[in-house]
Amino acid sequence: MSDIKVAVLGAAGRMGTQACAAVEAADGLDLVARLDHGDTVSRDTLAGADVAVDFTVPAVTEANVHAVLDAGVHAVVGTTGWDDDSRARVAAHLAELSPRGTGGRGSLGVLIAPNFGLSAVLAMTFAAKAARYFESAEVIELHHPNKVDAPSGTARHTAAAIATARAEAGLGPSPDATEAGWEARGADVDGVRVHAVRLRGLVAHEEILFGNEGEQLIIRQDSFDRASFMPGVLLAVRSVVSRPGLTVGLEHVLDLS
Amino acid sequence: MSDIKVAVLGAAGRMGTQACAAVEAADGLDLVARLDHGDTVSRDTLAGADVAVDFTVPAVTEANVHAVLDAGVHAVVGTTGWDDDSRARVAAHLAELSPRGTGGRGSLGVLIAPNFGLSAVLAMTFAAKAARYFESAEVIELHHPNKVDAPSGTARHTAAAIATARAEAGLGPSPDATEAGWEARGADVDGVRVHAVRLRGLVAHEEILFGNEGEQLIIRQDSFDRASFMPGVLLAVRSVVSRPGLTVGLEHVLDLS
Amino acid sequence: MSDIKVAVLGAAGRMGTQACAAVEAADGLDLVARLDHGDTVSRDTLAGADVAVDFTVPAVTEANVHAVLDAGVHAVVGTTGWDDDSRARVAAHLAELSPRGTGGRGSLGVLIAPNFGLSAVLAMTFAAKAARYFESAEVIELHHPNKVDAPSGTARHTAAAIATARAEAGLGPSPDATEAGWEARGADVDGVRVHAVRLRGLVAHEEILFGNEGEQLIIRQDSFDRASFMPGVLLAVRSVVSRPGLTVGLEHVLDLS
Amino acid sequence: MSDIKVAVLGAAGRMGTQACAAVEAADGLDLVARLDHGDTVSRDTLAGADVAVDFTVPAVTEANVHAVLDAGVHAVVGTTGWDDDSRARVAAHLAELSPRGTGGRGSLGVLIAPNFGLSAVLAMTFAAKAARYFESAEVIELHHPNKVDAPSGTARHTAAAIATARAEAGLGPSPDATEAGWEARGADVDGVRVHAVRLRGLVAHEEILFGNEGEQLIIRQDSFDRASFMPGVLLAVRSVVSRPGLTVGLEHVLDLS
Repeated sequence: MSDIKVAVLGAAGRMGTQACAAVEAADGLDLVARLDHGDTVSRDTLAGADVAVDFTVPAVTEANVHAVLDAGVHAVVGTTGWDDDSRARVAAHLAELSPRGTGGRGSLGVLIAPNFGLSAVLAMTFAAKAARYFESAEVIELHHPNKVDAPSGTARHTAAAIATARAEAGLGPSPDATEAGWEARGADVDGVRVHAVRLRGLVAHEEILFGNEGEQLIIRQDSFDRASFMPGVLLAVRSVVSRPGLTVGLEHVLDLS
Repeated sequence: MSDIKVAVLGAAGRMGTQACAAVEAADGLDLVARLDHGDTVSRDTLAGADVAVDFTVPAVTEANVHAVLDAGVHAVVGTTGWDDDSRARVAAHLAELSPRGTGGRGSLGVLIAPNFGLSAVLAMTFAAKAARYFESAEVIELHHPNKVDAPSGTARHTAAAIATARAEAGLGPSPDATEAGWEARGADVDGVRVHAVRLRGLVAHEEILFGNEGEQLIIRQDSFDRASFMPGVLLAVRSVVSRPGLTVGLEHVLDLS
Repeated sequence: MSDIKVAVLGAAGRMGTQACAAVEAADGLDLVARLDHGDTVSRDTLAGADVAVDFTVPAVTEANVHAVLDAGVHAVVGTTGWDDDSRARVAAHLAELSPRGTGGRGSLGVLIAPNFGLSAVLAMTFAAKAARYFESAEVIELHHPNKVDAPSGTARHTAAAIATARAEAGLGPSPDATEAGWEARGADVDGVRVHAVRLRGLVAHEEILFGNEGEQLIIRQDSFDRASFMPGVLLAVRSVVSRPGLTVGLEHVLDLS
Repeated sequence: MSDIKVAVLGAAGRMGTQACAAVEAADGLDLVARLDHGDTVSRDTLAGADVAVDFTVPAVTEANVHAVLDAGVHAVVGTTGWDDDSRARVAAHLAELSPRGTGGRGSLGVLIAPNFGLSAVLAMTFAAKAARYFESAEVIELHHPNKVDAPSGTARHTAAAIATARAEAGLGPSPDATEAGWEARGADVDGVRVHAVRLRGLVAHEEILFGNEGEQLIIRQDSFDRASFMPGVLLAVRSVVSRPGLTVGLEHVLDLS
């Protein structure tokens, strides 16, 4: 199999710089283009890339993806700021490009991943699977003290997935006799309590706790360094070429069977 | 759907006593027989049970299962002491009873579970799934100080499953530059290091650690009390009636899709 | 040295029952009286005790202590419900009994302990000592879901002690850039964030986190069972006889030099 | 109070570089000299320093300290490789310089610290204090997989301190019924079990576990980055000027009363 040619958009940013280095170091991948602020995204500038990796900014990421698709190139997106509407427009664009019934290798794919950390994605995925088997579930996320929002997007996403799994399994809310002191009980995300710790020295961490009478299951993940996202980026690049259509979430390209 | 009728073998033992209580308290299950040391296992003594739950001792558990099958009753087995040979004899017995090609509800099923703890079974299952995505993996098991063997069967089983998954994914051994002090590096189970802690106050706990550059995933489970095994026993009873043939491990009746 | 004679008040309650058993099993201690609801506390009923252990109820514990002192007996108190006023009345009573300047063995002592768990008391004590050396500090307490108040008294006490130590060391508040989502950031106890988790399967647990650039210190304690309080009760009984006056908190009789 | 003037030996090394930066950024400290490989250590090259910080190599650190003392300068030493003999020679040198009975500010001090991490030093110190109150104690250290020795020096030191405290309190060995599988039970350091985990993504971590019937105390410290040693280095520099004689271990300059 010939190498996969890769372009990086936002190549001068923090994540983009690491993505360029990771692609260059990876077997079977060739870095063919580095684009950044001010560069046009077109067939020419993408320089024959099979896959474009977007680590730009919310303001331009959607336009980038449409331009990448117009150039006949697959896209992997790590930029934040996507919502239902922007995702739907990308899905519609992909549908126009892929006549119903073709699919398969050759049809374009877009993979939007809110998180490329394997440990974070696995923690969320396992939490969703475990949720139906426990009476109680809570989430603690821990981050560096410069973070401005609480709880983290990852923790919200995890709690929402737990809530969905509990509902599907017919579980009611986790038992809770609290009468006084609700401010210590964290945020309520779809009925699941989420606590946010801010501590100097930490980076990004999540701990999901499940409890039954006499037992506990804890799933914890620690992201110490941005370097930890690169294995997920490479996995996404290798997967998107044979995954036509829109995929949201790295978990869909993990083999968890 | 009518209630499932349940017999408990070893009904006077520690686990059997709890199993009887759990069956009696459960919706949709009826306790119809309690057998213990000295009781014959037969169609008569099983008293119309659909499922027999065996919490006896290694010396008699296999004979019990054969007698249960001869009585036309499904079996759930929590007793330890099974090996490849005894499992093969039960599989052969089941094959004789179920003419090739029939299967389906009505054919008998046997579920042998080394562990009924949901948190323990989920921890092992998730560890096996996660293993292919991490460069390093180690296992720590922690138990009360009266335990005579180390490492625990659960930890051995977990390490072996991790080793298998790593091999399938083409991963070599976890990196390890240790030159001196191997006695601190734990037992080697199929190339995975397993550490055993013995501490007053603990019951049965397992922690599985995975590491990549810049990230860590920890899966931990705590069994504080034997009561924690009962949800798994009830799930096994409800599942075995529609699961013909031999099943080894509670993980096969969990919905982890 | 002759044995210390011990009376237990509230001897039929959950804690009192365990205290009686612990005293009976301990070297150097003799259980000489078990009093419960309806019994008068007097020199007669205390039956020659050197120390009375009070595990009764908030409504009667103060009156019990005054009666115990009137009978010339030392007191160890594990009952909750004490406040500054009731403690002050006991201190005044002790002062009347001990003419200024005598003190020493023979003078009566009262030890009121909000918590007899050694791990809990040590965790609080170490947290207070560590607090001045870290930029960030937060507290997570985890309890069974039947608890009605949050955060726990132990967590409040710990946070307050951390806040005092930080103030003495001239530290300002822990860094925190949170702009949105304060409800996930826990309760504010004297400027220290305290989070309360409620999970089926847990009993009483506390985790104190300290962070500096590049490092973290975690002090965690787990109380799995009421039995864990008995070593602290015995230590209190043995200490109070040579500790005249009022002592609040088991930490004062621990040797942490 | 005038600023403390500081020289750094090994100023071009990894630790020395950070020490220079930390001193320059600190209130009340002035960096007056950077010496490295090939530079003579003398009154001239130390350039009026009050304190010299040695982050060189085992082969030269002792000679450096003697030269620093001959120049009338206090020393803080972070280099490894010291043993009883080399420490005794420094103590003797200090004794010659300080006529019996003088001491006090003005007399020279040397502080040799095997570890400048506050979380590590506090964890060891608290573990030694807690040890006498628990039936069981074990140590787990976790490091990056490039470490060649096991268990770590910090873990050995911690275990030895626990063993000493247990012996002083009259405690026997931790209970342990292990009959088979000792290779999973870790290294024996003075009767305390020490386990070494090696995991990609980790840096240097230690977890000390104490157990009694029904309770557990865990003291854990994480060193994520060499930057975490600098607060300890600055504390040592500020302390050594008023601490004549030889001090081994940062714990002696912490205020843990």
